[in-house]
Amino acid sequence: MQFFSFWRSLASFRVRIALNIKGLSPEVISVDLMKGEQRNDAYRKVNPQMLLPALVTDEGAVLFQSMAIMEYLDDVHPHPNLLPSEAVARARVRGLSGIVASDAHPLIVPRVRDYLERDLKIDEPVRLRWIHHWLGEGMKAFETNLATSKETGIHCQGDNVTMADICLVSHAVGCNFFKYDLAPFPTVRRIVETCMKEDAFAKAHPLKQPGAPAAV
Amino acid sequence: MQFFSFWRSLASFRVRIALNIKGLSPEVISVDLMKGEQRNDAYRKVNPQMLLPALVTDEGAVLFQSMAIMEYLDDVHPHPNLLPSEAVARARVRGLSGIVASDAHPLIVPRVRDYLERDLKIDEPVRLRWIHHWLGEGMKAFETNLATSKETGIHCQGDNVTMADICLVSHAVGCNFFKYDLAPFPTVRRIVETCMKEDAFAKAHPLKQPGAPAAV
Repeated sequence: MQFFSFWRSLASFRVRIALNIKGLSPEVISVDLMKGEQRNDAYRKVNPQMLLPALVTDEGAVLFQSMAIMEYLDDVHPHPNLLPSEAVARARVRGLSGIVASDAHPLIVPRVRDYLERDLKIDEPVRLRWIHHWLGEGMKAFETNLATSKETGIHCQGDNVTMADICLVSHAVGCNFFKYDLAPFPTVRRIVETCMKEDAFAKAHPLKQPGAPAAV
Repeated sequence: MQFFSFWRSLASFRVRIALNIKGLSPEVISVDLMKGEQRNDAYRKVNPQMLLPALVTDEGAVLFQSMAIMEYLDDVHPHPNLLPSEAVARARVRGLSGIVASDAHPLIVPRVRDYLERDLKIDEPVRLRWIHHWLGEGMKAFETNLATSKETGIHCQGDNVTMADICLVSHAVGCNFFKYDLAPFPTVRRIVETCMKEDAFAKAHPLKQPGAPAAV
């Protein structure tokens, strides 16, 4: 298995956590987003969308989109599960995951920041306000759901790790990267801290990957 | 079952197609995004994230995020399936769906267009260029995958309807709304035309819903 990723990519971070939870160690191939390597021919042949991450199976199938890859890992390596067994609980986990993967994170990725800078000529402080706004919208939605749902436990859904925890942690680390204060989100903070005590999460942290700086 | 939706919401459109395919007819409650009704107390109590759609089960569980709702419908009403049975094929369907649901569509929703207008003071022609850019990025990614994959058949994945077709059709209708030309995407056009011949898709079209205008 080959895992195309980059230390700073938050979507890659999600899949890295899932791989760790499943005990899988694919060959890791770094595609440096800061140098634009995702647009090089070598990676375009793997994923023409030029986005990270991508996972290539031993049979040569190229999987893309972090949520789809995590669902695949759960389909093929079901223990430990990243989704609960009951349908409404599964829907909640996927819905919470979507707050990050389909609402908040798509608005702060490099290609969007580049468009704001190059095409719309938005200067750096206003771009940072944009980033903080959408990071915050995601965190507010997540916190409100977690703090008001009886389903919330040690983790987002009950007491076991699910995809929702993985997505939440990736978003929290994104907040740290951009110095967005998590103080107003106590349930989020509690769950993120709990997750980060687990090896599968801690070892997947962006700043612990080869090529990463000591801090951002 | 109650389905909170709006005729113009493309994420609601996706779930409406899935409900039709499954032969389900929930009570439909319109939340007028153009009047900002999603921010009213009545809907905030249903979905604090104030986004559409939401599906409330007969047991009172509130499901949110279009992908999570479609996965739930497929979990609970598996026939006909919206996902293939084989893991790599499922991953491709979810990955293609994510091109729309997690990459392209989040960038053109009302709250983002509002932020561009009100906070960044971007004028209408430049906002339309933004919308066309991200509609196009999604379509280019989709077309490239469809046109180069042996898995593509009558539909996105083989010859049966999947979530990928639903997401593709919703994105194509979004392109129509914003007058984005689909001529450069022949495989996309072929599959969208095939889908729209089916009742489940045709009857779900935004402009066929109560309250919709004759054209946009």
